[in-house]
Amino acid sequence: MSPPDDKTESRSARKHRAILEAATRVFLAQGYAGTTIDQIAAEAAVSKPTVYKHFSDKQALFTEIVTRTVDEAAEPVHAEVASLRDTGDVAADLRDLARRQLAMVMRPRLLQLRRLVIGEAGRFPELGRLFAERGPARTMADLAAAFRGLTERGLLAADDAELAAAHFNWLVMSVPLNRAMLTGDDAPPPAAELRRYADEGVRVFLAAYGRR
Amino acid sequence: MSPPDDKTESRSARKHRAILEAATRVFLAQGYAGTTIDQIAAEAAVSKPTVYKHFSDKQALFTEIVTRTVDEAAEPVHAEVASLRDTGDVAADLRDLARRQLAMVMRPRLLQLRRLVIGEAGRFPELGRLFAERGPARTMADLAAAFRGLTERGLLAADDAELAAAHFNWLVMSVPLNRAMLTGDDAPPPAAELRRYADEGVRVFLAAYGRR
Repeated sequence: MSPPDDKTESRSARKHRAILEAATRVFLAQGYAGTTIDQIAAEAAVSKPTVYKHFSDKQALFTEIVTRTVDEAAEPVHAEVASLRDTGDVAADLRDLARRQLAMVMRPRLLQLRRLVIGEAGRFPELGRLFAERGPARTMADLAAAFRGLTERGLLAADDAELAAAHFNWLVMSVPLNRAMLTGDDAPPPAAELRRYADEGVRVFLAAYGRR
Repeated sequence: MSPPDDKTESRSARKHRAILEAATRVFLAQGYAGTTIDQIAAEAAVSKPTVYKHFSDKQALFTEIVTRTVDEAAEPVHAEVASLRDTGDVAADLRDLARRQLAMVMRPRLLQLRRLVIGEAGRFPELGRLFAERGPARTMADLAAAFRGLTERGLLAADDAELAAAHFNWLVMSVPLNRAMLTGDDAPPPAAELRRYADEGVRVFLAAYGRR
């Protein structure tokens, strides 16, 4: 077997992406259970064997969609969380992180995907677990590590760093995120409103976990 | 038209309840969009016209399921929130409320219904809005009123009582509720774990909103 030349490879990568995009549309419109590989092939304008050449089954396809969507949104936040332990101004950097995290989590595509995995979690718990592991659980583990470092430096008093990370996360995101979940409204709230949730969430967090 | 005698009425009430219970099972198993009145009639072992005698359409049926399920769970909490403004011990009564509220929200049937309305909120936003209005929005409005009263009495410092109510609510519930949403696991977490989330949520809340 000879390696594929550049042109073949890029055509294959293009098809891979076209199938993913078509599958995302079908999944979001019809739910996980209601989607078939036939429909995805039709939406992507490729044959069914072509879909199977790229993805072993429906779950593999969905897994890649979740992984890509969550990673793309979460990557910049992870970098910011990692740099948090070296901060010189905890309050300012937490506010900055909170604002960025909130803007990330309120992306329409991510809200739609979160609704989809929650709606299917009773029947397909592995979808929700995948979403949680790539997104919230990873962010919170990183946050907890940063809070441990800041507590060692005497800049926070977060003895239970895991719980502190969860409190930080939900103080910032819960109000707009839960509203979006239930109303189905994906339009991002006004920036000033999101900033207020971020800043007030940080204020409450620091009242409880700030330097002793 | 003569009024129905007791026996007729109770038979009708029994049928009404049987249809509701059958419909709940079908909705939870197949989702809102995937459920038909035919399937509900079959599950309830009644005729389709009988279903329509009790409910004008699928949405009316679902509305009554949400209303009953949410009200049944929320009623005791509403009474407790209302009595909160006369408390003599804010911290103790908030902890008590938080524990009860958390136990209520983690009821399997309520978790399943929440997942269902979130999963359908993109296509049927009225389902999620109904759920929010009967449940979380009503609880938070009551909480905000209580926090305003406690702030007037000098026992809390919650100038923005609405936001304080939302913070209280999510500090207590977010961790176990969001985990259940994504994992599809409806088994109630151990009581000691829920108590810890309730008590630590109240601790953080009082650090930020406690008496000045």
